[in-house]
Amino acid sequence: VDLGWGHPHRSLVPTGAWADAVAATLHGPDAWRSMTYGYPSGPAPLIEWLAEHLSHADSGRSESAQFFITAGASHGLALALAVLTAPGDVVLVDAPTYHLAFSTISDSGCQIAPTPTDDDGPDVEAIADFVQVCRRQGRRVAALYLVPTFGNPTGRSLPDRRRRQLVGLAQRLDFTIVEDDTYRELVYDGPVPASLWSHSDGLGVVRLGSFSKTVAPGLRLGWINAAAGVVKRLERLGYVDSGGGVNHTNACVMAAFGTSGAYRQHLARIRPSYARQRDALVDTLRVRLPTVATPRPSGGWFVWIPLPAGCSARALLPTAEQHGVSYVDGSKFHADGMRGDDHIRLAFSLYAEQDLVTAANRLADAVEAAVG
Amino acid sequence: VDLGWGHPHRSLVPTGAWADAVAATLHGPDAWRSMTYGYPSGPAPLIEWLAEHLSHADSGRSESAQFFITAGASHGLALALAVLTAPGDVVLVDAPTYHLAFSTISDSGCQIAPTPTDDDGPDVEAIADFVQVCRRQGRRVAALYLVPTFGNPTGRSLPDRRRRQLVGLAQRLDFTIVEDDTYRELVYDGPVPASLWSHSDGLGVVRLGSFSKTVAPGLRLGWINAAAGVVKRLERLGYVDSGGGVNHTNACVMAAFGTSGAYRQHLARIRPSYARQRDALVDTLRVRLPTVATPRPSGGWFVWIPLPAGCSARALLPTAEQHGVSYVDGSKFHADGMRGDDHIRLAFSLYAEQDLVTAANRLADAVEAAVG
Repeated sequence: VDLGWGHPHRSLVPTGAWADAVAATLHGPDAWRSMTYGYPSGPAPLIEWLAEHLSHADSGRSESAQFFITAGASHGLALALAVLTAPGDVVLVDAPTYHLAFSTISDSGCQIAPTPTDDDGPDVEAIADFVQVCRRQGRRVAALYLVPTFGNPTGRSLPDRRRRQLVGLAQRLDFTIVEDDTYRELVYDGPVPASLWSHSDGLGVVRLGSFSKTVAPGLRLGWINAAAGVVKRLERLGYVDSGGGVNHTNACVMAAFGTSGAYRQHLARIRPSYARQRDALVDTLRVRLPTVATPRPSGGWFVWIPLPAGCSARALLPTAEQHGVSYVDGSKFHADGMRGDDHIRLAFSLYAEQDLVTAANRLADAVEAAVG
Repeated sequence: VDLGWGHPHRSLVPTGAWADAVAATLHGPDAWRSMTYGYPSGPAPLIEWLAEHLSHADSGRSESAQFFITAGASHGLALALAVLTAPGDVVLVDAPTYHLAFSTISDSGCQIAPTPTDDDGPDVEAIADFVQVCRRQGRRVAALYLVPTFGNPTGRSLPDRRRRQLVGLAQRLDFTIVEDDTYRELVYDGPVPASLWSHSDGLGVVRLGSFSKTVAPGLRLGWINAAAGVVKRLERLGYVDSGGGVNHTNACVMAAFGTSGAYRQHLARIRPSYARQRDALVDTLRVRLPTVATPRPSGGWFVWIPLPAGCSARALLPTAEQHGVSYVDGSKFHADGMRGDDHIRLAFSLYAEQDLVTAANRLADAVEAAVG
């Protein structure tokens, strides 16, 4: 059982409901409009539904001109970097954070620097100092990337006060927070913090959304919230303009999937399933490894496990795999690779409850064997 | 009637056949596989069908490892530039050529230089000289972009001999020809020249293909032929890796659309329609403007009209629009914007024959009014 994969459980991929939405979209005399060139920023029906939907799923309401439809959150990150940064700029990344963001940032020609952090997340004062030091060296800090809500890999959310402080800092020091908000709607218990975007008045924050986790990864469909001026710059990118948007047909189908209520029904179906998967994993680990402080994240797909003292995530991996379970070692989520070997990331999204119980038992066996 | 739009005629967008392919793909116990994460280079069934199909539509057969599925030809250009060039490199572009390629190249941080040309297209000796001059200046010529087959905007194809010469030059001087092969399958009369890619043995050429014109633009689906090593570098791009390919679900549906025979049937339906549209436009113009050498392209979507002496494409446009017809002026297709004002590009793809006859008559009226 490979708990490294952040993929959806097969039974939670809405093949039938999506096929219905395709059939509805590609039916009738205007169906051709969904298959020809679209607008660079995406089809209006999807943007209008999204603006309305997010006014419930988050605080506040974004203007239509503040939306850009992407081919997923990682593509959104690549697009945002294309218009917000120049080669050689510094991009701060949360520590730990989503590891595949690092290569996307490197591809843009920017330098990656891990943020200083404290127990609550990125450390505002230390970031301010770092930005000033960079300036004195002639380097520009262009952006800060983080996954502040049910984050990958930690499952944790940034406290509300820290959100406001970071937004204020970005506005004051003229860098852009790239808020990866992929997991907002995968909430299982309690309220979801308002986004950094919602605190920003459209200044200093670009938010990345995705339908990869809430609908299906293969669709390559997501969205950006950004100031209208940033959206205009995205629209003028050569291949966006040439292609008539980056994923027009799927975006039109998503509009139907959203407005028909299928999206809401789908969310209502997957949330309790993922919560049960989380609980199967967490409950078993808590019983089997009582000295390990296994967290129970309120949302997202991941559990971030602190290993017992002296237990290395990298060193444990072969033992775990001999026991029939795998994971991603924590150092992968640190841009410098120097920290995080005291944690492992487990994804509970891909497997059924019984498999997760099995995996948790195998992992506990491996930890016991390693710690001795 | 706006002959500026290179869009498909609404009746030639296969909404029903595509919906059928979606239904077939998203049916059955393995349907979830088409909606979860895919492989970075694209789904094997599509690549296998494509390799087989192209072995008939072109000369030779590419290996599976030489394919990468893209979100359209312009996206393919952006991807190719990302792995083949560095900011500051020089990218040569054919003159004239597809105008939206210019912004995609600029977005990559490269400098654009129009190729020296003769009557047959890019001038091999002059390019060789230019590359050497750049080298002496410390500048690297990384790539040459062109649309050699039923090209946009000219509708013309590069002679076979020139294809071989250019491939030899690229291999000798270590730059990459980016061959935009979007129009190969939209052939109406006679044979189609073998691609530059097929002459290259996988060295010095990257070919961009697209299903935008042959199936539908909104799908954002195309492909790259490149050396296996280039494909590997594309696979490692951050957002490609993170997303599990750039358009997995549509790529899986395209595999079904191809293997079922729907693609071949669709091509057989659209070719004679586009040929009739071409003929309606060309025949009317030849009758109405007998002194203008209106070409009849053997394929593609465009007619490149040489205006009568003294008639400026830019100056004619307001007059044409007063007469109820529009076009793209020829200077748009030259990177330097200095040439081409003696030509206009007309797209015959979007309109029915009768509308094209009307448009041609309006254009002739405008030319007559302008020339006096």
